[in-house]
Amino acid sequence: MKGKLLYEGKAKKLYATDDAEVVLVEYKDDATAFNGEKKGTITGKGEMNNAITTLLFTLLAKEGVENHFIEKINPREQLCRKVEIVPVEVIVRNKAAGSMAKRLGLEEGTELKTTVFEISYKNDDLGDPLINDHHAVAIGLTTFEELKAIYNMAAKVNEVLSAFFLKIGITLIDFKLEFGRASDGRLLLADEISPDTCRFWDAATGKKLDKDRFRRDLGSVEDAYHEVLSRMENAGE
Amino acid sequence: MKGKLLYEGKAKKLYATDDAEVVLVEYKDDATAFNGEKKGTITGKGEMNNAITTLLFTLLAKEGVENHFIEKINPREQLCRKVEIVPVEVIVRNKAAGSMAKRLGLEEGTELKTTVFEISYKNDDLGDPLINDHHAVAIGLTTFEELKAIYNMAAKVNEVLSAFFLKIGITLIDFKLEFGRASDGRLLLADEISPDTCRFWDAATGKKLDKDRFRRDLGSVEDAYHEVLSRMENAGE
Ligand SMILES: Nc1ncnc2c1ncn2[C@@H]1O[C@H](COP(=O)(O)OP(=O)(O)O)[C@@H](O)[C@H]1O
Ligand SMILES: Nc1ncnc2c1ncn2[C@@H]1O[C@H](COP(=O)(O)OP(=O)(O)O)[C@@H](O)[C@H]1O
Ligand SMILES: [Mg+2]
Ligand SMILES: [Mg+2]
Repeated sequence: MKGKLLYEGKAKKLYATDDAEVVLVEYKDDATAFNGEKKGTITGKGEMNNAITTLLFTLLAKEGVENHFIEKINPREQLCRKVEIVPVEVIVRNKAAGSMAKRLGLEEGTELKTTVFEISYKNDDLGDPLINDHHAVAIGLTTFEELKAIYNMAAKVNEVLSAFFLKIGITLIDFKLEFGRASDGRLLLADEISPDTCRFWDAATGKKLDKDRFRRDLGSVEDAYHEVLSRMENAGE
Repeated sequence: MKGKLLYEGKAKKLYATDDAEVVLVEYKDDATAFNGEKKGTITGKGEMNNAITTLLFTLLAKEGVENHFIEKINPREQLCRKVEIVPVEVIVRNKAAGSMAKRLGLEEGTELKTTVFEISYKNDDLGDPLINDHHAVAIGLTTFEELKAIYNMAAKVNEVLSAFFLKIGITLIDFKLEFGRASDGRLLLADEISPDTCRFWDAATGKKLDKDRFRRDLGSVEDAYHEVLSRMENAGE
């Protein structure tokens, strides 16, 4: 079943399977930040992110967002449709935080007059630089048509997830998505959605429940991931 | 006629005039680069950029690009309609160079699959960071409608100028524009277009005929500006 290692990333390993269309994704406990400059381990993260991504991709599929998720096969592993990843990361921002707050000189948490969609060039050597649609098309990463479809899907993901997290007392501040092209040419949401790739703030207290606890040495990192997962499980989705 | 100094920038001074709708723009010889970190003087630059901008804004007006230019009143000074500057710089790129080449890991001169339009937040404290349309609207710099009009005008400017410079043996690699809102609400092309704000490469030899000679200490800076101006004058526009 678990074939050869196709790729080892910062947070996951991808393995081939018997089915050329299917990859096995193994979630690791490794955590990195600042483009790999900061390294550490978050105990239990692999299992928690596998569980969280499973719940969210299942919810998204139900809501009509086509994605790569097939099934969770054990605490650390899931099967997904193999895709050719579009080499841009798509960031959706409901409030200013992180790199956008810094870039624009804003306080974190600043309200925005419009939801912000950003793309960055998925290229570790260049530090995943912010780019715009013209850059992406100019260097052949994607097309304007594909980007349009990507932004439409990203907006739908934001709608579904913002509403879901609100119900469990979490404000979805921002998140990163990846998309891929399946062998039949369909565009699928891929990769993961977890506290590694989202900013989650407790709606009542503002407490950070995401990887910023690791990035900024805020402590209680495992607890935060666990808090998100248990609220999700209690929501019964 | 020349009223009080309204603003002293890195390359120009703006003065009030008797007419509240009109500003006097004085072109300086001062040159700066890297957000003011590098400072110098380019002898004769003020006069050359006043002359070059005059020729180009006149050509653009003739071609239907509404702009702020009224008239050149002496070697260093021109009168312009006063506008409220939209706080984004618009960069149009026909080939990769400068910050885009660096950001995307490209050789300067690389062909692009599409013309690149970029905006940056006109904010010296933040280093005029690259932003996208969503950022600009999210923080209230402009609206999506205004941006659409800006990009349309920028594309027209690119068409007109690329053709004009080609005729005089110069490849227009990239350039920066600023736009402003006139008192009647019309969007006008404003600021300047000169070797300070464009990359001009000799079409035959690739020789740089622009501010990169100053930025990169390539020598013959004045000669390059003068070469551009004299080719323009000989073109009879
Ligand atoms: N369904 C899929 N098919 C192929 N590749 C995928 C799929 N989903 C995610 N990927 C890619 O697998 C890798 C996941 O590992 P990760 O540790 O997140 O890598 P990285 O360090 O590049 O972020 C990423 O490069 C991601 O783009
Ligand atoms: N028609 C106009 N009305 C008002 N301001 C203008 C007009 N044209 C240009 N400006 C502004 O005047 C200043 C020109 O001076 P400059 O030396 O280029 O400044 P900077 O150092 O900010 O680039 C710029 O801030 C520019 O935005
Ligand atoms: Mg990843
Ligand atoms: Mg200027």
